[in-house]
Amino acid sequence: MCGVFGAYSQSGSPVLEEVYLGLYALQHRGQLSAGVAWINNGIVRTKKNMGLVHEALNQHDLAKIDAHTAIGHVRHVTEGENRIENSQPLVANYAQGPVAIAHNGNFTNVNGLIGYLENRGAIFQSSSDTETVLQLMAHQPGVVPLEALKTALSKVQGAYSLTVLFDNCLIAARDPSGFRPLVLGQKNDTYYVASESCALDILGAKLIRDIKPGEILIIDSRGIISQKIPVQEQKCCHCAFEYVYFARPDSVIDGRSVYCVRKKLGECLAKNISTKNAIVSGMPDSGTIAALGLAEKLDVPFEIGIIRNRYVGRTFIQLTQRVREAGVKIKLNPQPQVLKDKNAIIVDDSLVRGTTATRVVKMMRDSGAKKVHIRISSPPIVFPCYYGIDTPSSKELIAAQMDIPSLCEKIGADSLTYLTCEDLVDAIGIPKDKLCTACFDGSYLENKPCDNLLEV
Amino acid sequence: MCGVFGAYSQSGSPVLEEVYLGLYALQHRGQLSAGVAWINNGIVRTKKNMGLVHEALNQHDLAKIDAHTAIGHVRHVTEGENRIENSQPLVANYAQGPVAIAHNGNFTNVNGLIGYLENRGAIFQSSSDTETVLQLMAHQPGVVPLEALKTALSKVQGAYSLTVLFDNCLIAARDPSGFRPLVLGQKNDTYYVASESCALDILGAKLIRDIKPGEILIIDSRGIISQKIPVQEQKCCHCAFEYVYFARPDSVIDGRSVYCVRKKLGECLAKNISTKNAIVSGMPDSGTIAALGLAEKLDVPFEIGIIRNRYVGRTFIQLTQRVREAGVKIKLNPQPQVLKDKNAIIVDDSLVRGTTATRVVKMMRDSGAKKVHIRISSPPIVFPCYYGIDTPSSKELIAAQMDIPSLCEKIGADSLTYLTCEDLVDAIGIPKDKLCTACFDGSYLENKPCDNLLEV
Amino acid sequence: MCGVFGAYSQSGSPVLEEVYLGLYALQHRGQLSAGVAWINNGIVRTKKNMGLVHEALNQHDLAKIDAHTAIGHVRHVTEGENRIENSQPLVANYAQGPVAIAHNGNFTNVNGLIGYLENRGAIFQSSSDTETVLQLMAHQPGVVPLEALKTALSKVQGAYSLTVLFDNCLIAARDPSGFRPLVLGQKNDTYYVASESCALDILGAKLIRDIKPGEILIIDSRGIISQKIPVQEQKCCHCAFEYVYFARPDSVIDGRSVYCVRKKLGECLAKNISTKNAIVSGMPDSGTIAALGLAEKLDVPFEIGIIRNRYVGRTFIQLTQRVREAGVKIKLNPQPQVLKDKNAIIVDDSLVRGTTATRVVKMMRDSGAKKVHIRISSPPIVFPCYYGIDTPSSKELIAAQMDIPSLCEKIGADSLTYLTCEDLVDAIGIPKDKLCTACFDGSYLENKPCDNLLEV
Amino acid sequence: MCGVFGAYSQSGSPVLEEVYLGLYALQHRGQLSAGVAWINNGIVRTKKNMGLVHEALNQHDLAKIDAHTAIGHVRHVTEGENRIENSQPLVANYAQGPVAIAHNGNFTNVNGLIGYLENRGAIFQSSSDTETVLQLMAHQPGVVPLEALKTALSKVQGAYSLTVLFDNCLIAARDPSGFRPLVLGQKNDTYYVASESCALDILGAKLIRDIKPGEILIIDSRGIISQKIPVQEQKCCHCAFEYVYFARPDSVIDGRSVYCVRKKLGECLAKNISTKNAIVSGMPDSGTIAALGLAEKLDVPFEIGIIRNRYVGRTFIQLTQRVREAGVKIKLNPQPQVLKDKNAIIVDDSLVRGTTATRVVKMMRDSGAKKVHIRISSPPIVFPCYYGIDTPSSKELIAAQMDIPSLCEKIGADSLTYLTCEDLVDAIGIPKDKLCTACFDGSYLENKPCDNLLEV
Repeated sequence: MCGVFGAYSQSGSPVLEEVYLGLYALQHRGQLSAGVAWINNGIVRTKKNMGLVHEALNQHDLAKIDAHTAIGHVRHVTEGENRIENSQPLVANYAQGPVAIAHNGNFTNVNGLIGYLENRGAIFQSSSDTETVLQLMAHQPGVVPLEALKTALSKVQGAYSLTVLFDNCLIAARDPSGFRPLVLGQKNDTYYVASESCALDILGAKLIRDIKPGEILIIDSRGIISQKIPVQEQKCCHCAFEYVYFARPDSVIDGRSVYCVRKKLGECLAKNISTKNAIVSGMPDSGTIAALGLAEKLDVPFEIGIIRNRYVGRTFIQLTQRVREAGVKIKLNPQPQVLKDKNAIIVDDSLVRGTTATRVVKMMRDSGAKKVHIRISSPPIVFPCYYGIDTPSSKELIAAQMDIPSLCEKIGADSLTYLTCEDLVDAIGIPKDKLCTACFDGSYLENKPCDNLLEV
Repeated sequence: MCGVFGAYSQSGSPVLEEVYLGLYALQHRGQLSAGVAWINNGIVRTKKNMGLVHEALNQHDLAKIDAHTAIGHVRHVTEGENRIENSQPLVANYAQGPVAIAHNGNFTNVNGLIGYLENRGAIFQSSSDTETVLQLMAHQPGVVPLEALKTALSKVQGAYSLTVLFDNCLIAARDPSGFRPLVLGQKNDTYYVASESCALDILGAKLIRDIKPGEILIIDSRGIISQKIPVQEQKCCHCAFEYVYFARPDSVIDGRSVYCVRKKLGECLAKNISTKNAIVSGMPDSGTIAALGLAEKLDVPFEIGIIRNRYVGRTFIQLTQRVREAGVKIKLNPQPQVLKDKNAIIVDDSLVRGTTATRVVKMMRDSGAKKVHIRISSPPIVFPCYYGIDTPSSKELIAAQMDIPSLCEKIGADSLTYLTCEDLVDAIGIPKDKLCTACFDGSYLENKPCDNLLEV
Repeated sequence: MCGVFGAYSQSGSPVLEEVYLGLYALQHRGQLSAGVAWINNGIVRTKKNMGLVHEALNQHDLAKIDAHTAIGHVRHVTEGENRIENSQPLVANYAQGPVAIAHNGNFTNVNGLIGYLENRGAIFQSSSDTETVLQLMAHQPGVVPLEALKTALSKVQGAYSLTVLFDNCLIAARDPSGFRPLVLGQKNDTYYVASESCALDILGAKLIRDIKPGEILIIDSRGIISQKIPVQEQKCCHCAFEYVYFARPDSVIDGRSVYCVRKKLGECLAKNISTKNAIVSGMPDSGTIAALGLAEKLDVPFEIGIIRNRYVGRTFIQLTQRVREAGVKIKLNPQPQVLKDKNAIIVDDSLVRGTTATRVVKMMRDSGAKKVHIRISSPPIVFPCYYGIDTPSSKELIAAQMDIPSLCEKIGADSLTYLTCEDLVDAIGIPKDKLCTACFDGSYLENKPCDNLLEV
Repeated sequence: MCGVFGAYSQSGSPVLEEVYLGLYALQHRGQLSAGVAWINNGIVRTKKNMGLVHEALNQHDLAKIDAHTAIGHVRHVTEGENRIENSQPLVANYAQGPVAIAHNGNFTNVNGLIGYLENRGAIFQSSSDTETVLQLMAHQPGVVPLEALKTALSKVQGAYSLTVLFDNCLIAARDPSGFRPLVLGQKNDTYYVASESCALDILGAKLIRDIKPGEILIIDSRGIISQKIPVQEQKCCHCAFEYVYFARPDSVIDGRSVYCVRKKLGECLAKNISTKNAIVSGMPDSGTIAALGLAEKLDVPFEIGIIRNRYVGRTFIQLTQRVREAGVKIKLNPQPQVLKDKNAIIVDDSLVRGTTATRVVKMMRDSGAKKVHIRISSPPIVFPCYYGIDTPSSKELIAAQMDIPSLCEKIGADSLTYLTCEDLVDAIGIPKDKLCTACFDGSYLENKPCDNLLEV
């Protein structure tokens, strides 16, 4: 779970301010670090720091940089430690020239690749799986960068949406299954590549199309060339969780509006529930859109039953035990005026450890709600993700530990239902055989996605 | 527009962590600076800094301070320059001992008081009107602090909700008109005073009651004593704008739920509007609750037609002209899926300069809306506030510059309506003669609230 | 022990850059904090921070300020806590206008004055004794600043060299005993007042003369006026320790070159010492000049027998016990090449706790010195200073705890001698009745300098 | 010009606090950055930052690290840009395990090596010549680190004094010519390697011996093994400039005390100079020791004729033109008392651009000196250094631009003399054929030290 961005101005306008804005729109995909890279006089340069985009990068300084093509990255922890060396874009000035790379996804065969490369003299500087692409390129002496990249991509397995920068050329590549989203946009003479379409909207750019699974785009002064990554074709496997949780609601991914999908997910929850004296509320802010869909479908009032402190966010409040035990409510405050004597239906997009749900159910009852029903707009997550999403381990996934009735009892709700996998697929509107629902049902692309030794 | 807080633990528990949380809940009342004060061995101590509560104060350090009573303040600029000397609480160790004061409101006769005091040797350290209270106290030699404070309050005019700290005693005082809110709460053996009840909720404390206009509370180890501030009784004058805009929706002020008032304000807008093919949307986040009320009343779908980047906040993005002119959309992104071919009714709580409204109307149309109707859940603001609200000058208040039809044309909407003053009063549910609506209709408490010379 | 500076340009040139340089030259007089003050449009402004001059103040920003007169201060802790509120210049905008004050010295009757002022409404903001002058001025309603200052100075007792800033006028004042130095200088149309002449040298300015004990100078656009501070005349009492230790060697104080005095102090030590096979070395850097004088007088080679790490300074190195006990030598490194088989004569300007001396004697012997003789270029300090020098308490003053032979044995030297008070007076060249030698012989100006109640 | 340090405790005591102190003593060899490296559980760790040792490293944190062997480095700019990536130690966790390296010196064949390595897939992360050693090691697959290092060293040419860290073993290596110093020390069970002996003194450790040219020491739990670096023997070529300028005076390098050499350099200047009415003064602080030698030899008084502001150091003072032109004296202040009517003989260790000398000569005359003679305790520098010293370019070297009489006239002195190369060699006491005096006379080790292609 990261965000990538790239821009190429054919008229030679500076683009780093737009890369900054693109990353700013993709901030929800990664808050750990942010970075940009560009090439100047044949030397690749980078600015990256820990923190949010506006903390990590100085917009004013970027605006002054004369570079007509550049890439950027926001990072959420996946593989590798949380240190600055692992933040992206990764860059190198190697024998064939400068190169920068930004990666969303996860390679599943990285250990084998590292062994292969170290035996040939490679010194790895990061613990990011992305560096294997750079090292694979560098270990093809005399091969021009584009061919070296294509060969490197033919060696890696797993999920990747990449933006890559060579001297005077911007590359976009999406793995053959299309796990993670990647879109192409345009405004006037400038082309953009972004993880989500909301990063085109912020710039006033037009969404041209999604990059296709297995496609590699080469953008330079002459225009755009589309090629195929030299790998065997694979089943399309778009991540369903992007629609449920990750993506911004105003993005359109592989042709579907995330907002509309989320409302439909809420509508699908309108089963087996009494509407008498009921109100529907979303868990702020993650459940709001599905809650709107459910309320509309049930024809029940939508209320903001729980107010979220809007200054909560990156504030880390570590209370002493004395105060913590006294039952403080830092983030969420229920509204007794709205809840008193009501059947409260609370919608959230997922349920991980169950601690927030337990607390919210108690708040609802303390505020006078007669019944508290919890509705989750996705199926239970019970399997790990190998394709770039940082799911908790099974031990932490409460749905993997107990059945739904036990879980309902544990969190103290009057009822608890999840969406079925079928409803999820219907709501998204993409055929089931083109969606990855592995974290819900364990049906991984390969029999066993793992890190096996590689024959290069 | 500031927030005050105070806590007194009768069992001697440390309270500064709770003061921190109280201020955190009051963050919406002031983001310029935050501070706390306490007394230790007869010496008043203070920590204050520019910025949000979690930036200005170190919660971990505060938790270690051994003080069973303390006060706090968040500051929004009103009178005085934006420098640290003006941030509150203001403190002094004077002849009668230590004193700290935190103030929400604005004195209207401060210039006269300053002249009087300087002629008696006073050296003012801040340019905050609040310091006059400290100086008036210090210039009553031999008078014990509580009596000196009461005499000082009898000399000041205007709006104040105060928390004051003496050695081993916490004071709360509210001006005779009750302009600004101030509530009393309790949890176990600890009493709390806060600008709004949401600051009690965060602590799990119970709202006991509002401090009455003209009341001064003395809280110490023996309990709470209520006294009257020695001034002539005055017409009650609660600020209507707290309900419309300032207060948090989950607060209850002078007996009214802010959330319920805002929904009713929205309902009152359900006049002269076609519901055919309509959707209602709130300007995020300020118009959401009134929009819910309006949608419900009209029985029209409520949609999130405009998505707000939730990382926008304190980020200041200053674009170069080139990019700015290219029509970037930093904060708000419309949802064409929701807006296409619809009559979009957009609700906001007020309309100051009209620039955001103009931009939003254009966004709506570009996203395919057939009609765009703007509804404002308050009357036009056309008069300045002398009681602590930092209203723009008349020149900046667009409603003071043109009539509503011209304004509607200027922002490009198909229709624009405001609430009437009568609807506003009805929705709040407080009798008109107990409400201050001066910024809407110019009916100030005094004929001419100003800073006149004082007879002491 | 602090440093003051002031500048007045009659042609209206900006002076703050020169005030910065003046403070930079006076850095040795105070490293705790630094500050400047100037007046702009009738408002007094100040910049002050903890740390050295170049840390506390931004030279570049100061150079841009348009002020043709200003004052500055470097602070060494004396009275009052080490917090920024106590750093100087202290400033006030009071009824009669703006005022700023910078003080070197110490008032001996401050407690009485504070009581008197607090009973008249004063709120003290600092715990600096200097604030009493501002408060005394403010409590003379209707009196113009200059007269108010003169009256205030007639109430305080003790040591002071002051620079004071009024609107368009710079004041310099030195107490009637002339404890601390204060000089007047000039370059072109600009007058300077400084604690020491080295602050004139840095600017290329000429030393005109010392400010006389009991003199107050008023410098404005018309020139310089000299007046007498309205107090009873007092015995002149220049601080002898300025010559021994405080002042920079390149300063000239009350007509005497500090460098020449220090060389003579060294010459006076040329008694009762065998020169056979001897070398003379100074304790770096405090004993160097006296050591030169002694070596020349004895006609014995001067060597740098101990090298000081020139990066030691403000570095605070706190070692773990394990390493500390292993005998590390952070600051000083002996030179066996120079010391082997020699009679080493080590000169220092004073001997406070004896710990460094003990360590150095051991180092000398470990490096092969046959004999180690310690010579101190001042008499033993056995009495506290009430006039602005931060002498250790008697308990810490090793010379107050034991006689010289015991002390010699304790530090392990072959011999130890101090200067006599008579030699000190002779070397300085100022008549004994005009010198303060109280810290050596207890002969204070008053019978008992203390903080007694004041009749105002 | 850098400093290296290493420590190995055979009893397993933590050594990083001692490495910190060692670097602190070597601070004069590099003020740009400082760093340390150690190995923990098979992973090499590093802390490095820009700035002085006490700024770049946290002594308190280092003291807590459990590592019984570690290396450190202080960096002065030589090759490569001044960015943190180039600061040392450089580290890698490569196929054969962890490695860290700290380097003083300069490789003369680095370009060829980089090309060779990049053609084999190497991605260089720094622009430091030192990284070639790491890359050469990594490109010997299956070769154990010690052998890989020895082979790597057989490929590089130029100057190096290295400390290298492997898992559980500390390496010291000095190039076959012994350009830069490197010593071995011991205290109890711990061995130390350092650029200069003063870094042993600070720890109370004993100097065992110099590392021999071409020697590589392996220090581990079993003791110390000495081996020969597998290269052809080369002429010994110790850097003469270490004695003149670089090294700390309290260091002993290749058997010679730097302090004693500098005094002798001063003595050698005692030619062709009238001692009548003369005083000798050193340019502070660089000329002091040679000045002592000259004064003693001439039997003329040594005086501190110029006082250096001891707070000058890393302060960067950038004056406005107005003030700069007014003739301010930031760093140096002459002493008229000492100079008046004298023949002033001023000694410095070198003369680079001549600007300081010109200013000092003028100061002397303004202070009343009748004659001003400049004496330089080294020959004129007219050739560049290829072995790690950052000499100015010929254009900046004033001695390469004009003959001595012209230079004397330019700086305005009455006479100017340099040391001859013969005197320099005599004073150092090392045979001429074992000294590098290339910067004075152009006699480089190779005919043309340059960066030629490499046969590996």
